[in-house]
Amino acid sequence: MGTALDLSEDVGTLTARLVDVESVSGAERALADAIQEALTPLPHLVVHRDGDAIVARTELGRAERVVIAGHIDTVPVAGNLPSRVEGDLLYGCGTSDMKSGVAVALRLAARLPEPNRDVTYVFYDCEEIEAERNGLLRLSRRRPELLAGDFAVLMEPTGGEIEGGCQGSLRVDVVVPGKRAHSARSWHGVNAVHKAGAVLDALNAYEPRRPVVDGLEFHEGLNAVFIRGGVAGNVIPDECVVTVNHRFAPDRTVEEALAHVREVFAGYEVRVTDASPGARPGLTHPVAAAFADAVGGTPRAKLGWTDVSLFSRLGVPAVNYGPGDPTLAHQQAEHVSLAAIAECERRMLAWLG
Amino acid sequence: MGTALDLSEDVGTLTARLVDVESVSGAERALADAIQEALTPLPHLVVHRDGDAIVARTELGRAERVVIAGHIDTVPVAGNLPSRVEGDLLYGCGTSDMKSGVAVALRLAARLPEPNRDVTYVFYDCEEIEAERNGLLRLSRRRPELLAGDFAVLMEPTGGEIEGGCQGSLRVDVVVPGKRAHSARSWHGVNAVHKAGAVLDALNAYEPRRPVVDGLEFHEGLNAVFIRGGVAGNVIPDECVVTVNHRFAPDRTVEEALAHVREVFAGYEVRVTDASPGARPGLTHPVAAAFADAVGGTPRAKLGWTDVSLFSRLGVPAVNYGPGDPTLAHQQAEHVSLAAIAECERRMLAWLG
Repeated sequence: MGTALDLSEDVGTLTARLVDVESVSGAERALADAIQEALTPLPHLVVHRDGDAIVARTELGRAERVVIAGHIDTVPVAGNLPSRVEGDLLYGCGTSDMKSGVAVALRLAARLPEPNRDVTYVFYDCEEIEAERNGLLRLSRRRPELLAGDFAVLMEPTGGEIEGGCQGSLRVDVVVPGKRAHSARSWHGVNAVHKAGAVLDALNAYEPRRPVVDGLEFHEGLNAVFIRGGVAGNVIPDECVVTVNHRFAPDRTVEEALAHVREVFAGYEVRVTDASPGARPGLTHPVAAAFADAVGGTPRAKLGWTDVSLFSRLGVPAVNYGPGDPTLAHQQAEHVSLAAIAECERRMLAWLG
Repeated sequence: MGTALDLSEDVGTLTARLVDVESVSGAERALADAIQEALTPLPHLVVHRDGDAIVARTELGRAERVVIAGHIDTVPVAGNLPSRVEGDLLYGCGTSDMKSGVAVALRLAARLPEPNRDVTYVFYDCEEIEAERNGLLRLSRRRPELLAGDFAVLMEPTGGEIEGGCQGSLRVDVVVPGKRAHSARSWHGVNAVHKAGAVLDALNAYEPRRPVVDGLEFHEGLNAVFIRGGVAGNVIPDECVVTVNHRFAPDRTVEEALAHVREVFAGYEVRVTDASPGARPGLTHPVAAAFADAVGGTPRAKLGWTDVSLFSRLGVPAVNYGPGDPTLAHQQAEHVSLAAIAECERRMLAWLG
């Protein structure tokens, strides 16, 4: 059978255990199994499973219910597994984004048989890939009652500070056409890869906006995430496709962001492949303010897209708050401070204990 | 069983039959089977097979032996099969490059039981892909005695004119490095695809040479034939690879051509994936001159790489001469004139009959 998780281990050790169960998006089964097996024996939790998402709920009849959520998948491994410790730092794929947050949530689930608010713990799959496969989206469609609550904390990496809102994300294919010819007589064709130079020029010249929304500063981006072109080693390519990811501040809708992207790539065919709206900070909501008082710090804008946007659409006020360093997510040298994980656990216990 | 070829049909109809047996490089078996089955019953030929290459030889003890050769593979089909006739033109993948030449060779093999020179007919596989898989190269290593001769005619498309020499071909991967980061915070990474814009700029600015070698003008080229880069939809790519095909005139060796390419892409890692030398025109050789007298026309330089280069290395003087139009090779609208195929057959019969 799979890996057994011992939720009585300290939260840093537990993070390392979670990191060492590889769980690239779409291949989370082993980790979902381990989480389910660790939570099911706890008598104060009712555990549900949907695909590779696990939901565990206290049913204490408290006046408020909060949702504590985290995705269990990671971006592709980049030679950075298994995890390793150097001083206070734990290195490895997913340490920051976001198995340290998942470890904190698992520790809370084990250590708080009688929290002061009912808690719904959500561990879900496929957050790091196209929105349509997102496990939280799937849960919201198939088991919306499991996600209900007065407030949600997504334990995405925020460096231990509350982050409000999130930027939207749009992915488009910019298609550059050409005309095939034998590469020995290239002047009879039109080289689509050479022509794609103009698309890369537009990306290199792009100046991203940094708008202030509800008092928090966001920072947009427009980046090629894939490029492909070519037919055969002796043929002038007749098509080159540049996949562009636009991250946009929550003062724009998906439609407005798309109009902007079409303007940048005017003259090219632009095919939308993925779109997720942002969410405004929403920190003025009373429940959000109460959480902010309890854990402290100065809220700032969340630049990455997170499922705060999905909770926002479900009418559940939500923030990001987790021990990981957001600037290290998806990098080969991804790591997390063991002290920061412990501090995050301490503050969450203080809030719910 | 496979398609049966009737070598008594006129050469245009036979070309259409050959075109309609799809034979993209690496998948020539059905066509090789059909050619073997058509030639084996002819009592004046000794037929050999090596992989998907077929060699058929007269053994008449003539003073001279000539080799008539053609590849039976094509570039990938581009929605241009089956073949269709419009007036004098036969359209379809491989019509020009080079099933019309193969059809002429098959007709000669069937119609000339007693040619004035011994003839070796060679039909081979995998010419349109990396040199290492080339069927003629394989034959030259495993059955070199089958390729011996005083002169060779490669029936590549030349528009019915003799083409001397051939350009060399070099393929390299130009590697552009970057640094991964989450695409929501792209400024923490280095986007390798964006940086590849400088490689495309160099390609767009490139001015190819047109040197005159042994009296014939060549025309070089430097073209991207593939581009690829990207890790995941939300990750800044840490590598972009541009595959570049350099076609170079036969006044340069492979080593000189590579030095030139390294100079164009100075500062980047350049990995060689494929290299084939060119061949000087060689039309001053007496046997080549005798052929030129027989078929007429004004010799010109061959721009595409052809296996003339391989015969050149084996010490067999060789030229390109075939009915296809070289400017149409590898294009979606590839076609050939039925009258040109018939004229080519007539001239070859006049030479060998």
